[in-house]
Amino acid sequence: MTALKPFLSDNAAAVHPKLWEAMRAADQPDHPYDGDRLSAELDARFTALFGRECAALWVATGTAANCLALGTLVQPHGGVVCHREAHIEVDEGGAPGFFLHGAKLMLCGQEHGGEGAKLTPEGIAALIDPVRNDVHQVQPHAIAITQASEYGRTYTPAELAALGAFAKERRLCLHMDGARFANAAAFLGGSAAEAARAASGPVHSLAFGFIKNGGMGAEAVVLFDPERAMEVRYRRKRAGHLQCKGRYLAAQILAMLEDDLWLANAAHANAAAREVAAGCADRLLHPVEANELFVRLTPGEREALRAQDFAFYDWGADSARFVTAWNTRPEDAQALGRAIAAL
Amino acid sequence: MTALKPFLSDNAAAVHPKLWEAMRAADQPDHPYDGDRLSAELDARFTALFGRECAALWVATGTAANCLALGTLVQPHGGVVCHREAHIEVDEGGAPGFFLHGAKLMLCGQEHGGEGAKLTPEGIAALIDPVRNDVHQVQPHAIAITQASEYGRTYTPAELAALGAFAKERRLCLHMDGARFANAAAFLGGSAAEAARAASGPVHSLAFGFIKNGGMGAEAVVLFDPERAMEVRYRRKRAGHLQCKGRYLAAQILAMLEDDLWLANAAHANAAAREVAAGCADRLLHPVEANELFVRLTPGEREALRAQDFAFYDWGADSARFVTAWNTRPEDAQALGRAIAAL
Amino acid sequence: MTALKPFLSDNAAAVHPKLWEAMRAADQPDHPYDGDRLSAELDARFTALFGRECAALWVATGTAANCLALGTLVQPHGGVVCHREAHIEVDEGGAPGFFLHGAKLMLCGQEHGGEGAKLTPEGIAALIDPVRNDVHQVQPHAIAITQASEYGRTYTPAELAALGAFAKERRLCLHMDGARFANAAAFLGGSAAEAARAASGPVHSLAFGFIKNGGMGAEAVVLFDPERAMEVRYRRKRAGHLQCKGRYLAAQILAMLEDDLWLANAAHANAAAREVAAGCADRLLHPVEANELFVRLTPGEREALRAQDFAFYDWGADSARFVTAWNTRPEDAQALGRAIAAL
Amino acid sequence: MTALKPFLSDNAAAVHPKLWEAMRAADQPDHPYDGDRLSAELDARFTALFGRECAALWVATGTAANCLALGTLVQPHGGVVCHREAHIEVDEGGAPGFFLHGAKLMLCGQEHGGEGAKLTPEGIAALIDPVRNDVHQVQPHAIAITQASEYGRTYTPAELAALGAFAKERRLCLHMDGARFANAAAFLGGSAAEAARAASGPVHSLAFGFIKNGGMGAEAVVLFDPERAMEVRYRRKRAGHLQCKGRYLAAQILAMLEDDLWLANAAHANAAAREVAAGCADRLLHPVEANELFVRLTPGEREALRAQDFAFYDWGADSARFVTAWNTRPEDAQALGRAIAAL
Repeated sequence: MTALKPFLSDNAAAVHPKLWEAMRAADQPDHPYDGDRLSAELDARFTALFGRECAALWVATGTAANCLALGTLVQPHGGVVCHREAHIEVDEGGAPGFFLHGAKLMLCGQEHGGEGAKLTPEGIAALIDPVRNDVHQVQPHAIAITQASEYGRTYTPAELAALGAFAKERRLCLHMDGARFANAAAFLGGSAAEAARAASGPVHSLAFGFIKNGGMGAEAVVLFDPERAMEVRYRRKRAGHLQCKGRYLAAQILAMLEDDLWLANAAHANAAAREVAAGCADRLLHPVEANELFVRLTPGEREALRAQDFAFYDWGADSARFVTAWNTRPEDAQALGRAIAAL
Repeated sequence: MTALKPFLSDNAAAVHPKLWEAMRAADQPDHPYDGDRLSAELDARFTALFGRECAALWVATGTAANCLALGTLVQPHGGVVCHREAHIEVDEGGAPGFFLHGAKLMLCGQEHGGEGAKLTPEGIAALIDPVRNDVHQVQPHAIAITQASEYGRTYTPAELAALGAFAKERRLCLHMDGARFANAAAFLGGSAAEAARAASGPVHSLAFGFIKNGGMGAEAVVLFDPERAMEVRYRRKRAGHLQCKGRYLAAQILAMLEDDLWLANAAHANAAAREVAAGCADRLLHPVEANELFVRLTPGEREALRAQDFAFYDWGADSARFVTAWNTRPEDAQALGRAIAAL
Repeated sequence: MTALKPFLSDNAAAVHPKLWEAMRAADQPDHPYDGDRLSAELDARFTALFGRECAALWVATGTAANCLALGTLVQPHGGVVCHREAHIEVDEGGAPGFFLHGAKLMLCGQEHGGEGAKLTPEGIAALIDPVRNDVHQVQPHAIAITQASEYGRTYTPAELAALGAFAKERRLCLHMDGARFANAAAFLGGSAAEAARAASGPVHSLAFGFIKNGGMGAEAVVLFDPERAMEVRYRRKRAGHLQCKGRYLAAQILAMLEDDLWLANAAHANAAAREVAAGCADRLLHPVEANELFVRLTPGEREALRAQDFAFYDWGADSARFVTAWNTRPEDAQALGRAIAAL
Repeated sequence: MTALKPFLSDNAAAVHPKLWEAMRAADQPDHPYDGDRLSAELDARFTALFGRECAALWVATGTAANCLALGTLVQPHGGVVCHREAHIEVDEGGAPGFFLHGAKLMLCGQEHGGEGAKLTPEGIAALIDPVRNDVHQVQPHAIAITQASEYGRTYTPAELAALGAFAKERRLCLHMDGARFANAAAFLGGSAAEAARAASGPVHSLAFGFIKNGGMGAEAVVLFDPERAMEVRYRRKRAGHLQCKGRYLAAQILAMLEDDLWLANAAHANAAAREVAAGCADRLLHPVEANELFVRLTPGEREALRAQDFAFYDWGADSARFVTAWNTRPEDAQALGRAIAAL
């Protein structure tokens, strides 16, 4: 595959050299599980980044990060409002059903408004208000949003504030699937702290993704109500996600935070996406804000691109999805943009 | 901690250099999840090792490996027979309850016979036969044994055959927790293939541990009924254990199998344990077969050892547990043996 | 409420006198749970009715009947295809999530065809074929249909045969929610045995409802693969549904089967529904086949009917639902038909 | 069986005439589920009985009552301390594992002290204090006691107060399985209100049994923290335990409370047990406080009793269990006592 220009997914990209260094540096005796010195730094480092007290735990996958956080926000007899195209609904093999013990995903769709698989207070209200206080129907306990969304769209701080206020009013918790949180933050701009705060808004919990951004196998569950952290620790162990040698996961995350590598990597990927977008603005199904492009392309056009060694996924019958990554070569992005423009 | 002579646990030891090499070699573009070339090799490699058809999947922890395998053997309304001191009962934070949806662990204890937390057909029969076919009582669906046991004891091929025959007669499945399977195999002896077959016997599934034996974060779920493998794949995803970049896990496991590194590492650890044992034969609570020692030591004696920089866990009021690892320095093992002898 | 003409629901109607008699006759010492003589008759009685071997168990609610049966057909990591308006999806408080341990309900909607919340093979294929063999997506294990449907429509024997063949081809099990199975059978016509067979077709399991048809608190789980019955017995106990004094439930069901009371009661209710329908054919949202009517009525019209002491539920903004029962007085049904006609 | 003198179990006894009357009186139109006038009375009636605010819900079985209450007290990752011989551990087919989503039953045994399967603060402390705050071990969330115990022993108010204080100190909830609560209350004595308060002490929730005491199929879940009641309502529906025609269950319970029938029935059963005990004081394994007797009897002696038409269960190799009920005929109890004395 080495000759291909890879736009399939950011989730298979190589590991960033700084993370290799950090893992090797961790390769010395220390306490098992999360008793090591590196794991012990996480709470403070994320508290500093977000400027509000939080606890942070490593886990190996975004699926686990989302579900462990949601498990503390939602009772088994409750529900989680999310978009019908949310990753937790369509791409996690039923993991929420497992981790939440059968709690229900309550689905907003296009009919509830919201662009690019984003949720709005109005849409959620239309979904949940009719079922309120009816014992025959599952009651919502939390809302889960994705930042950046499954279509690469970001929630603005104002949109997040509105969702937070709505959640509070309805006594719901607010969780953020941040598999591409870094890309959303990079789009929103500012210093690392400013970007992190802007992109996270008033959420109760965040699955902060690093794997798509140059990590090997470490994401962070960030809990802005630190009291929930102890519960997540028990649930993490119970789910088989408390690794023996946690220091290698902590090392990855700390290296990502060091010198704001997470933000730089994401900015690189976003820039590459913009390069591509420049060549296909008229074909875009969604504005390009993060590092994904959804492009109207006929089967013949897709074939032509593949003949030029571009690797990507079809997206329905008449479109394709391109994803850039922390290590996308600018020349590949430019070449892709030009190739589409030339179709 | 670097100055300490570490006998706390093998589960925090450093990663073997060959595995670092293998992971670095995997650091190039490939398909995500388990679609990569390395993951695709696992089934064949384990089939070759065990000499009977099997499927093998990577997961990040032994807890997940055990529970994912058991999940295919046990219905939620059933039970798993294990020892009261089995790791799945006492040390996995309730993971079996989670993965098996509330299935019951049915506990054999010392009153059921069996040395060193091992199970026997007679003991299991005494436990389960009285509850047979009574709808008010949970029915057993599987038996779970630990090889080497929680006290470092191994099941011989004859013992495994007897358990297998018993399980078949009672229509139960047989699972093996092999967190220290390599140490048991090394104790039983022979070529890698001979040792692997001897140590696994007729089990239906095996959680084959590598992490305590020099791995970073990869164990193998080995299913000798390959039809169950597809089910484990779905359950692995559902449990958040399908990592994006599975090639780094596959690389670790393949490196372990290469040139029988897994067996050599375990043999090293076992030899170190024997070195220690040589100094304290009269104090041993259990015969030393694998890489753990349970040694009668008064609080004062433990204090004296710690003053000499030996690190280990207390085991109850009057004993201590020492664990050797793939990288235990022979001189440390000898020193420990001498130090105990000199008490 | 006694002065009202009740068309709210059949599920709150009084208990049929024959069932009171039968329960009183059971009021003598016998074995607890389902060890009594009456419970022991169920398998044979249902086998005779359906003309194929089956096992039958009593439970107290339709929700439990559906979920216990589905629990034997669906693994926790699998899914159940049903209609988006199916009772198990919208009206059982998340019970399938609980009983099936988080298995997913996979929803067909109007976009998948099928009248009156009925499913078709084509619609199901459109839903499930795209997710086949993708470990990131829940795989269907069973199909659940409702006979009569949530809009009072019946599946014909030909439609059931087609669904059965489709299920077999896709290796799915087929379950029937028969909360109003009697009403469907009465519509399809023939002797009790003919009607029961016609209405059930080739399903693997049936929740045979009696409560809406004059029962007090007993439904039957009918399993046409008797091997599954033992599993349901364990699951019933585990769900707290094995009542101590099961003979009072068995007595209700046997009284319903005696002299085909179940069919006579349903025929009565269906006839009453037809009486109503005669007065509002032009306003019907769905053809009237069983004992439910969905009638286009403005808020003002509904108010006018309520002023005449008719009790019923609104159905959205511009309609109402009327349900007849085993004890609906013909004069009330005629009066309702006339009252609507006169609006 | 009519000729037998039944001491097998109170859970299969006939239904009390007053309850039949009450159910027949409820046989008129009313709202479905628990929307009827009778169900609406429960909270106030139990609040009056216990003299402290509570909510009360009907369910069909004691298993459901226990598990629905415990479900609000215990998170899935937590544990419930109970006796190794507690009904929820040994006789409910794994129901706690189902309702509590795999939470663990943490077992006190004889080695922890406590007579007749009763728990003590000291015994519980010995069990749970060693696992505190260890993420590898399940943490207790609640304590479940049985009143009267599985051996017919009662907790005194002082013992309950001590358990309540201990639970509070350890931040645990306290649940009472009161399948034979009435018998315990009758033993403790006083007016109905005094007896109910004495027998319940400071528990957070109580499964108040009526079925063994003359009911047909209705127990009450009593929640002394009424805020939990709404959660139990959702969980009851989700477990398929919200019956359509709840008024027939409410009618049973209200009839039991009317004129303190529950206490009179239990006093009758207890008196019958004392009659039996008078004939076998020297053979008793446990003091007789409620309505169960555990009597040392050789196989030959048991055979001799059965030859005289006494029905009862063996209890291990050398004993038998006799249970009296609300309708045990005094002459049968006396006859049994005499028969044992004459052995």
